[in-house]
Amino acid sequence: MEITRKNFKEALPLIGASIEKADFLVMDAEFTGLLNGRDVTIFDSPQDYYTTLLNGATDFLLIQYGLCAFCWNDDTKQYTNESYNFYLFPRGRPGPEKMFLCQSSSLDFLAAQGFDFNKLIKEGISYMTEPTETRLRENLTDRQSRTNDKESITIPEENRSYIEGICKKVREFLNDDKSEEMEIDRCNAFIRRLLFQELGARFKNEAFVESKVLENKNRVLKVTKLKSVSEVKDLDTQKKEKEWEEFEEAVGFSKVARMISQSGKLVIGHNMLLDVMHTLNHFFQPLPPDYASFKEFAHCMFPRLLDTKYMSSLPPFKDKVNSSVLNHLLITLSEAPFSLPEAESESGRGYTRSDEKAHEAGYDAYVTGLCFLSMHAHLASMRGERRARVAGSADSVLLKPFVNKLFLAKTAHQDSPYINLTGADPTPSRDHVFHLTFPKEWQRNDINQLFSAYGQITVQFLDDTSALVALSRKDLAKTVVRAFASNSRISLVPYLRYKALSNKSASQLERREEASEKFAKLHPDSTAIARRGNVSIPPAARPAEVSRSRAQSASHGAPAAQPARKRTSSGMFQVEDSEPPPKKTEGTAENAKEQNNVTVLSNGRRKRTDSGKEKAKERKKETDIVIKCSFNSDKPGECVSAFKESDSWD
Amino acid sequence: MEITRKNFKEALPLIGASIEKADFLVMDAEFTGLLNGRDVTIFDSPQDYYTTLLNGATDFLLIQYGLCAFCWNDDTKQYTNESYNFYLFPRGRPGPEKMFLCQSSSLDFLAAQGFDFNKLIKEGISYMTEPTETRLRENLTDRQSRTNDKESITIPEENRSYIEGICKKVREFLNDDKSEEMEIDRCNAFIRRLLFQELGARFKNEAFVESKVLENKNRVLKVTKLKSVSEVKDLDTQKKEKEWEEFEEAVGFSKVARMISQSGKLVIGHNMLLDVMHTLNHFFQPLPPDYASFKEFAHCMFPRLLDTKYMSSLPPFKDKVNSSVLNHLLITLSEAPFSLPEAESESGRGYTRSDEKAHEAGYDAYVTGLCFLSMHAHLASMRGERRARVAGSADSVLLKPFVNKLFLAKTAHQDSPYINLTGADPTPSRDHVFHLTFPKEWQRNDINQLFSAYGQITVQFLDDTSALVALSRKDLAKTVVRAFASNSRISLVPYLRYKALSNKSASQLERREEASEKFAKLHPDSTAIARRGNVSIPPAARPAEVSRSRAQSASHGAPAAQPARKRTSSGMFQVEDSEPPPKKTEGTAENAKEQNNVTVLSNGRRKRTDSGKEKAKERKKETDIVIKCSFNSDKPGECVSAFKESDSWD
Repeated sequence: MEITRKNFKEALPLIGASIEKADFLVMDAEFTGLLNGRDVTIFDSPQDYYTTLLNGATDFLLIQYGLCAFCWNDDTKQYTNESYNFYLFPRGRPGPEKMFLCQSSSLDFLAAQGFDFNKLIKEGISYMTEPTETRLRENLTDRQSRTNDKESITIPEENRSYIEGICKKVREFLNDDKSEEMEIDRCNAFIRRLLFQELGARFKNEAFVESKVLENKNRVLKVTKLKSVSEVKDLDTQKKEKEWEEFEEAVGFSKVARMISQSGKLVIGHNMLLDVMHTLNHFFQPLPPDYASFKEFAHCMFPRLLDTKYMSSLPPFKDKVNSSVLNHLLITLSEAPFSLPEAESESGRGYTRSDEKAHEAGYDAYVTGLCFLSMHAHLASMRGERRARVAGSADSVLLKPFVNKLFLAKTAHQDSPYINLTGADPTPSRDHVFHLTFPKEWQRNDINQLFSAYGQITVQFLDDTSALVALSRKDLAKTVVRAFASNSRISLVPYLRYKALSNKSASQLERREEASEKFAKLHPDSTAIARRGNVSIPPAARPAEVSRSRAQSASHGAPAAQPARKRTSSGMFQVEDSEPPPKKTEGTAENAKEQNNVTVLSNGRRKRTDSGKEKAKERKKETDIVIKCSFNSDKPGECVSAFKESDSWD
Repeated sequence: MEITRKNFKEALPLIGASIEKADFLVMDAEFTGLLNGRDVTIFDSPQDYYTTLLNGATDFLLIQYGLCAFCWNDDTKQYTNESYNFYLFPRGRPGPEKMFLCQSSSLDFLAAQGFDFNKLIKEGISYMTEPTETRLRENLTDRQSRTNDKESITIPEENRSYIEGICKKVREFLNDDKSEEMEIDRCNAFIRRLLFQELGARFKNEAFVESKVLENKNRVLKVTKLKSVSEVKDLDTQKKEKEWEEFEEAVGFSKVARMISQSGKLVIGHNMLLDVMHTLNHFFQPLPPDYASFKEFAHCMFPRLLDTKYMSSLPPFKDKVNSSVLNHLLITLSEAPFSLPEAESESGRGYTRSDEKAHEAGYDAYVTGLCFLSMHAHLASMRGERRARVAGSADSVLLKPFVNKLFLAKTAHQDSPYINLTGADPTPSRDHVFHLTFPKEWQRNDINQLFSAYGQITVQFLDDTSALVALSRKDLAKTVVRAFASNSRISLVPYLRYKALSNKSASQLERREEASEKFAKLHPDSTAIARRGNVSIPPAARPAEVSRSRAQSASHGAPAAQPARKRTSSGMFQVEDSEPPPKKTEGTAENAKEQNNVTVLSNGRRKRTDSGKEKAKERKKETDIVIKCSFNSDKPGECVSAFKESDSWD
């Protein structure tokens, strides 16, 4: 079901009901771009990964949100899907004005898939973060409580005759019986302000004056005849109610996001890190620069997340799945030994397989749900069970290895496959990884030659004269450093030392200021939050708080033992008093910046703009592909390789 | 005439002919946003103005370009208009990938005016700057000259059976007679690379393998049967020709912009500073941070510019034009004592008055041209002449006061009404302007009270506790400083000192690095130019140079006396040897940054996001309005005021 601002209000209860009765929810999102600036390297830590996306991806806009609720039908013993495809566009007034980045190739791609940008801009549903909502709500309350306290302006000489002319026309309008309303157009803002003042003073008991925005965005003054003096009050009340209605419309989709959060249900996505980050950042609160805070924040808002791309990368699926690109995965999981379940469309609100609307967020969510169900059924059958429904404690055990791990597509092959939202991340050794600087004229073969005595290597080029190189024979790491120490044409620096040096090369102060200025520029209404560097919110912004344990997801069955996080009725995140206090701003900002500047080298050996085109999602098939080949010392030219997609392949 | 990528190539000669035969050209443009970050203040210098727009406006995209050629018809003794409305979108490959900013309210506004964003993204014409064109042209030449020099990759074990399977299918396809072409889909980039290599090696004389991008952006490999061995060469030549064709398409609209520049004709716009800046920045070269270089650059590319908004602000129009908003101006100039000329549409390519397509760039250009002709006729009639045609030396004299001055809408009322492209800018005194810091609880009336003994004042609020205040009685400037020196509740700092202090408060180094990083991030392909900080280009980027004197615009009739600037055949800018050398990078960057940080205070007393919404163009009627009122010391509350448009007025 397509949801725009035209049917959002009516559809909201329906959406709420779908979330309420679902066994699990699936989400997907489309953005105006994927990544701006340098990409992650294949050896980055989960924290580096997060920081890179935070800096490079969050200035894009989330423009389509797919939500697919899988609801169990006890009669057919099958799932039905109730799907919603939301167009999202925060158009300002009464919501916040948004500055956002676009990537031309992303828009071009979406347009080629049939994405309707006119519908987006004209009919997209608004949204805002919670701090913004709180602030604007206060402003409106405040503004409505002040009545006519504006200072009177003396009409400048040059405007006097014009103002008098209009007043005369209004007098005539009030005296005749032809119509009840009159519009005054072609005034600039200052003239409107003067007229508002003069007409209000002169015709207080006869007319009600208000501003009106026409379809074409022109502003006019609307004058309405009053039948009685008391009618002023009615019209004023109506006007205030209308303002609140418009405000609620501007909060818009955030309400859906918060319902999903409040449900506490299993939320599934495919390669969902970016989707989760954008969801938090646009509908809840600005993402914290501090990585630990992000993990807490994400887990508190979405206590049970499951990434089907991560799931498909583990046994027993790993060996049977050649490509985890979503539509490839769907085909694989519909063939033996797997089988796709039926999940009929509920009352025409959902999708069917024949829809073929790939890259529509709602449809991709639906397909992700089918993939999940196929894998779930396969897991159950391996335990000798035949179980189509996803629920109950048995499933908690079944799904435990996959829950609350966000897939890291670009580092997965280097033993850093996920962000663990409920525990420590993997910390693979990087002792066998080096930063290599080499002469500009060197080609790949020269690097192969250099390392020919040290077995198989993995190479990621950073620029024309540097690359990251990993040995497969980790035992030779120390040997190679000693061996190359006297080689004056190259320099080899252990990866961790290289990262530390990169960080030191720029003063911390500079970086911190730069980041906060950039952030403030793009997010004028969230500066205060960003500066504090954590995700807690000022007391004023906290409505009645509803405590909900997140234990159900973290340990599946021992809620009492878990520390509690609080989420408010609108899904707000707050660390409880019993928790360790959030990290201090200073330390947090510094830590974050250390991550921020892992490398000062660009990642563009082949094509300078490539790094801006890629997404964790591989649907554009432009993701970095780095492969390892066995090294054959007889034919050094044939093997050691690292690949990046680039024009030159095609 | 609407021009998209579908008809651009065929239309180009027609457009060239229109430019060729026009007496003058009119331009207008639409953008994805107007201003990000702080706005100019009403006391800013032209240089501050430029720097603010450079930092806040140039990351937006130019998405529609209107070009209206006014051509004289000697039979009817009237002008005809030949107008072109271009949709512009640089979609990447083979052009550069673009990262650009959008302002949600601007898109919302354009959509309400009927702007077609789907057409924009699907059919927009590409464009690129000259340095980018040069670089990409070299890359393509280079790539095409290298033949099959790719290193061979050993096929990884896990991909071997898949690759062999495909090779078998291709063998079968080659053996049968069913079809001439075969497509291989659902391969990721790496598999495509392997197949390209393997198929090329195994079927070299039987098949031609190439990459193909489908309508839906999926990439496939296309295998074509070869009839003879020599056909490889033909197909390869065809492929290369196609690549060049696609490249020329990607250069796209830049060719039109350069034709306009090359024509050296009078180019007219309404409130055209932003249009000129975007035109230079998108189609020629990245704008220089140095203001003097900008003036030289703009004048060299467009030797005769005329801004109708500036023209209408001077005598004899000033007193007769109440509002210079474009459509208001049109109405004013069609009534006595003015009259609008006829300017028929040529062969249906132009507009007529009944079109009413306000805010379509082409239509706005047409209307601007009509306004210009009306004012031109009025000037001529004041000299007792009846002359409909704009040409010849008489017009040079007539138009001299208006030519090469770009209107500065926001500072015009403070004696800084234009940027003079061919001479020194106005340098109005700011001795009577002060930066005032006051207690948070103060209202406007408190400021009025404070200055009640010093005559009329003009106030522009910067934030809750500071404002800029100007005395109309300049003779009292020194008195007021002395009088307020002992007032501990406020502080009053002369404007120029305040600016100097603001600049010093941040270290130059930090700022410079920050700016260049931000720039590099958004303009990955123009970093080198930006860093050099001037607009000259590397020798490699200079085709045959065509010297053209700019004297015709600067002094109307004494070309030999003027120093020459060079523009290349494609309109490139270059300072000649005989010119003073461009300013050094270091100095330039520093100067620019000094401008960049004129104030550390935000300009948002009423509404925090307001400053991001405004444009020099007043068509959205949201421009700052600052008025002066006479001060009446008996009623201090009624007069001294400065206004900003804000929600609270409506």
